[in-house]
Amino acid sequence: MSAAEILASYIVSCKPSDIPDDVRHEARRALLNFVGCAVGGAQEPAVEIAVGALIPFAGSRTSAVLGRLERLDPLRASLVNGISSHVLDFDDTTTGLYSHTTSPVASALFGHAGSEEVHGSELLHAFILGFEVASRLGAAVSPTHYEAGWHITGTIGVVGAAAAIGRLRRLDEIQMARAIGLAATQASGFREMFGSMGKSFHPGRAAESGFLAVELARRGYTAPASSLDGPRGYMNVLSTHHNAVRISDGIGVDFYLRANTYKPFACGVVIHPAIEAASLIRHEELEIAKNLASVDLRVSPIVIDLCNKQNISSGLESKFSVQHAAAVGLVRGRGGLAEFSDDAVNDQLIKNVRKQVTVTADPALQDEAIAVSVTCSDGRVISKSVEHPLGSLARPLSDEMLNGKFRDLTEPYLSSESIESLIEMLWDLENSRVSEIVRTATVLQADRR
Amino acid sequence: MSAAEILASYIVSCKPSDIPDDVRHEARRALLNFVGCAVGGAQEPAVEIAVGALIPFAGSRTSAVLGRLERLDPLRASLVNGISSHVLDFDDTTTGLYSHTTSPVASALFGHAGSEEVHGSELLHAFILGFEVASRLGAAVSPTHYEAGWHITGTIGVVGAAAAIGRLRRLDEIQMARAIGLAATQASGFREMFGSMGKSFHPGRAAESGFLAVELARRGYTAPASSLDGPRGYMNVLSTHHNAVRISDGIGVDFYLRANTYKPFACGVVIHPAIEAASLIRHEELEIAKNLASVDLRVSPIVIDLCNKQNISSGLESKFSVQHAAAVGLVRGRGGLAEFSDDAVNDQLIKNVRKQVTVTADPALQDEAIAVSVTCSDGRVISKSVEHPLGSLARPLSDEMLNGKFRDLTEPYLSSESIESLIEMLWDLENSRVSEIVRTATVLQADRR
Repeated sequence: MSAAEILASYIVSCKPSDIPDDVRHEARRALLNFVGCAVGGAQEPAVEIAVGALIPFAGSRTSAVLGRLERLDPLRASLVNGISSHVLDFDDTTTGLYSHTTSPVASALFGHAGSEEVHGSELLHAFILGFEVASRLGAAVSPTHYEAGWHITGTIGVVGAAAAIGRLRRLDEIQMARAIGLAATQASGFREMFGSMGKSFHPGRAAESGFLAVELARRGYTAPASSLDGPRGYMNVLSTHHNAVRISDGIGVDFYLRANTYKPFACGVVIHPAIEAASLIRHEELEIAKNLASVDLRVSPIVIDLCNKQNISSGLESKFSVQHAAAVGLVRGRGGLAEFSDDAVNDQLIKNVRKQVTVTADPALQDEAIAVSVTCSDGRVISKSVEHPLGSLARPLSDEMLNGKFRDLTEPYLSSESIESLIEMLWDLENSRVSEIVRTATVLQADRR
Repeated sequence: MSAAEILASYIVSCKPSDIPDDVRHEARRALLNFVGCAVGGAQEPAVEIAVGALIPFAGSRTSAVLGRLERLDPLRASLVNGISSHVLDFDDTTTGLYSHTTSPVASALFGHAGSEEVHGSELLHAFILGFEVASRLGAAVSPTHYEAGWHITGTIGVVGAAAAIGRLRRLDEIQMARAIGLAATQASGFREMFGSMGKSFHPGRAAESGFLAVELARRGYTAPASSLDGPRGYMNVLSTHHNAVRISDGIGVDFYLRANTYKPFACGVVIHPAIEAASLIRHEELEIAKNLASVDLRVSPIVIDLCNKQNISSGLESKFSVQHAAAVGLVRGRGGLAEFSDDAVNDQLIKNVRKQVTVTADPALQDEAIAVSVTCSDGRVISKSVEHPLGSLARPLSDEMLNGKFRDLTEPYLSSESIESLIEMLWDLENSRVSEIVRTATVLQADRR
């Protein structure tokens, strides 16, 4: 069997009872975090613009968009859900893959569920399968695919979205293999977009493209079974090296959801250690930011690769600036949404500190580790290091912390009654109606629309 | 200026009077060929399926689809135009790029013009600019991009569609540079899809994606100016080597439309020489196909790379089988739509001949050249070679031949009055209303719908 056929067979045949309890729980955590990010991001300019652009084209506006009053057709609703759930850079991350897979997969599922009745248990199962299939494809092309400059969230997410929607739409194995191929051949999005609205467009377009692939395949649109592993197929074309065995190894037993993590800070995951270490220093000396001579960061090379941006002008850019991350840690001791806004970027004290930060790559450091050393104007030196930041696999956010993050994200837009009801329904997803979740996530408070 | 900014500046500032007459004439030829291919392909299964899949999602069904009775929204109409104009593999080819650039660019333009009044002179100018921008990007990443397995038609066509629609929608330079970026980051489609419906999906999705990029950018959606030439941008990520100077060299003076060619046969362009040489042999001996011992083809290596398919089961596959091409030439002495249908693939005599064909790569042969040697059962050997096939730059189809091809393609679906009226309006595009062209191309004969 080809790689697409192996995955198709798994998606079609896997039963909910085949999924271990801990994986199911992690899926609930991922979806709670997803809905929070989507509602919290839904009023961002990128989302406003996209909704405005799509409304003239969307006719059968049957599908609710998370966190918005407007309705779109289910494909376009998927696109917008993808933008809103990723635009804050606050969504989840699969350790080892640098992928934010939930956004494209769940965005398509909620786009579909915004117009048709879907039971929570079905959505949860489809999500687990979509997440798993995308991750296996990602593992097969890692690390060269991401290193080459692909934004893996979209390039594997499109296949995950097809897998999830294909399961919900009950494709047979042949249709599913074709849907995987039609999704894979739409894989797109490069990392040059990071720091612009283009970044959040990727999971949005991936969600819509995966969904569209299913709609085509279920009516008989063809694609070769060799779409993933053929000589001119996905793995060969989108990666200089790949390891196809990762598609099938341990399938049904090992689950990538177990490697999923949730961010305490609203920015790229590789700069989380900088915020935490800098915040520890501020905790020792509250006024440190006003008395600085220099700030030295020793970081893993990937941080330089991804997030070495000293001159920034927007909140979106700041989410990929390790200098900014260190600065907000030293100035404010936190890294919430407000610390990665246009206002924070232009805050005079944060600006001053950002300019004082120097960054050195240390290949001996693990990806998650950092050493921060601050020299005060009086000559004192304060150093802190972090090996595994909060939110990493070694120090995961607890369920209660995820509830707190959900409340912080949604509080500006939803009533506290709606928020608590959403938390309850999402933890009890198997017994919830998704339409009720979507409805609750779109009833915005009158003064906060 | 970055590559995207150079192209944006050109698109925004180029006046119709800056375009030489011969380029304008070539654009008319390309669009005549395009409309013929779209109407001729519009009843193919791939198009039927796509229209069926999209109708439930398309609400504001304001836009006519070439060769169809249904209407869709302009974005979805662009997608379907892209499938129909490419599905017969009968559209144009830019020599040196292996790209069928007109399909994605013109599909978006006609998708737009299907719902809004567009003057022919504006559409022609926007098409020329879109074609040119896509081609320059293609030249910059050639030949490694295509060799790696990308279906260049879609991967550059998406940027060409954005350029064309962006010009029509009067974007300013900043918006246009962003539209180029948002289109480029949607570039997708690999060659493993060749031989399936997935192939024609590529220009369709490219047309829609380029169009969408414009709609986002004109409302303020951002993308970095470095989208094409940045370290993680289009050229670096989608090609192992590139030559960025080809983006700007001779811009406004040299035009890739001058390298555009039109197919006399309904299949991949690299197997055209096989049909022509085999047909020459049949011309000498009409019954040759029934008296064969062996058929030997000596071809350029690219033919093996692209079209070495002896075992095929569908018409779509046959369009990329040099064995099938030689067989239909020997059996029927032609290579029209009927010769690349499911019926022809299963025709017993064609099948027998196909099995007798052996193919050898000869690196000394130019891409367009072939030597065919047939051994009869009585021992006689007949050999023919072709250096430049009909339809190549060296032996272009005349305007009158393009009219004949247009009539052949549309005759099953349109009245002869409509056909002649379309030919007239397309040759006189500067003085035509595009809505009238679209209307005429969608009035199907009652018995032929």
